[in-house]
Amino acid sequence: MLAVHLENGGVAVRRRALPKRKPGYALIRMLAAGVCNTDLELRKGYYGFRGTPGHEFVGQVAEADTSALVGKRVSGEINIACGACEFCARGLGRHCPRRTVLGIVKHPGAFAEYLTLPESNLHVIPAGLSTEEAVFVEPLAAACEILDQVKIARGARVAVLGDGKLGILIAQALGAHGAEIIHYGRHKSKLALGGAARTYAAGAKLPSMAFDTVIEATGSPEGLRQAVAMTRPRGTLVMKSTVHGPVSLDTAPIIVHEIALVGSRCGRFEPALRLLNAGKVNVAAMIHDTFRLREAPRAFDRAAERGVLKVLLTPD
Amino acid sequence: MLAVHLENGGVAVRRRALPKRKPGYALIRMLAAGVCNTDLELRKGYYGFRGTPGHEFVGQVAEADTSALVGKRVSGEINIACGACEFCARGLGRHCPRRTVLGIVKHPGAFAEYLTLPESNLHVIPAGLSTEEAVFVEPLAAACEILDQVKIARGARVAVLGDGKLGILIAQALGAHGAEIIHYGRHKSKLALGGAARTYAAGAKLPSMAFDTVIEATGSPEGLRQAVAMTRPRGTLVMKSTVHGPVSLDTAPIIVHEIALVGSRCGRFEPALRLLNAGKVNVAAMIHDTFRLREAPRAFDRAAERGVLKVLLTPD
Repeated sequence: MLAVHLENGGVAVRRRALPKRKPGYALIRMLAAGVCNTDLELRKGYYGFRGTPGHEFVGQVAEADTSALVGKRVSGEINIACGACEFCARGLGRHCPRRTVLGIVKHPGAFAEYLTLPESNLHVIPAGLSTEEAVFVEPLAAACEILDQVKIARGARVAVLGDGKLGILIAQALGAHGAEIIHYGRHKSKLALGGAARTYAAGAKLPSMAFDTVIEATGSPEGLRQAVAMTRPRGTLVMKSTVHGPVSLDTAPIIVHEIALVGSRCGRFEPALRLLNAGKVNVAAMIHDTFRLREAPRAFDRAAERGVLKVLLTPD
Repeated sequence: MLAVHLENGGVAVRRRALPKRKPGYALIRMLAAGVCNTDLELRKGYYGFRGTPGHEFVGQVAEADTSALVGKRVSGEINIACGACEFCARGLGRHCPRRTVLGIVKHPGAFAEYLTLPESNLHVIPAGLSTEEAVFVEPLAAACEILDQVKIARGARVAVLGDGKLGILIAQALGAHGAEIIHYGRHKSKLALGGAARTYAAGAKLPSMAFDTVIEATGSPEGLRQAVAMTRPRGTLVMKSTVHGPVSLDTAPIIVHEIALVGSRCGRFEPALRLLNAGKVNVAAMIHDTFRLREAPRAFDRAAERGVLKVLLTPD
């Protein structure tokens, strides 16, 4: 089979043996996969990554212990948990200390013709939902994770900082939940995709201590500092985007205003699938290009271009 | 009257007119006041402070609108709120954006023979509680504030970092609440005052991802970084101590482990008074020295000495 291989900053496409399916796992034929910012970072060599990336995907089950799964169109949760530890017992396999992670940590990813995942990680895609849209279930789940961590009332005013892929999905997901989104970003065209009640592009004056809930999704140290300044006393700042390297942060306003900073990562797939299936989010407009697996080097370059949102890979 | 005056890094004692009592305010004769780290920072000129500091005190009401208060021994909440804004309506006058703060922001402090405070800020000290111990109600309230912000079950294991005055009070307050405290600090003698089940002095190896709840009270950037490393996935890190200047922080573990960092400042006096009155905390052992008002420069120097805990000021 064909599989993308990252090493030393380069993107190669190689022929590989079909992955071996372990008991309890399904062998899945990839139908479409999305290039995420994390993949671009893996290419740069972050986390010392070497191997096949890809963790946003839809595929068709080719083999499985559970025969009813065979032939089904699925996506899959990316954390492969041990199932035996305290976190797994609490339903938090996403924090299992022994987990591997599809296309990120010690488990070959979805940028290949075939991949494997535990059957328990799989979610069947509803018939009415297109494969291309369903690829967004993983990043949309990360956006929905905010609602699992932080109480946001319907009608609550929420500031979202950042108009990249994640910021747009967050604006849509929290908007669908009933929050009034005020979306801050750089580009009017990207902000339009978030569907927020109000949007402010680059150059807008940022209000000080104005929101009880602020979502940081810029990926920049300056974005985090601005988010702190925009949060009201006793408010909550959700940190969605990792900044590489240390961030210089003044802790005084966090303590004086008793702000809660809440780190937020992957989420459950169920609420994201519900939003997609109900048509309550619009992800199709975020797909800017599609490449075939063997064009993966071009797909990575395209995804890294300024202003480009989601780039998909499909099998040859 | 005599009043301490800070200006340009110096500590002076001056003669001043008695403060004017506004309607709704009480005039209070100071009986004892505590020197806090914040006072040492005000001396250095932080916040551009110039004037009379002092916000931990017990005094006797000399004049008040409410005649029943006159002659009573009181302490007082330090934030003087507007009483009309949204935060005041929610009972969060401590976050009132128009507040002044006793001895810190635009309201002369308790390092003087007399001070004024709104009657609504005052708490009568129970007869069985000594004046010297009751001076601790303000910093102990700051320790108890953690329990107003974060759910800590009885029997829960909590790591407290820092064995300064605040760290010791936090260990005692959370211990009295029923938590199992593991206290990390520098000095065995100070750690002993916290009364924790287990203590670890300088040089101890700090466990990684070991606690669901970690309280940071070291006041150092390194302490905050260590606190992040010690917090388990989905755990809570309470930031009690301000670090001056920007802190260099890696945000990746906060996001990957979905940690909540909760800034924490002043607290309600009621729970602190209850703990003091019930003898559930031992603050007397933390009083290392007492000076008279006119010896204030020496009191400040003494309080700044390494290893010295609480220094009190009393009227001449």
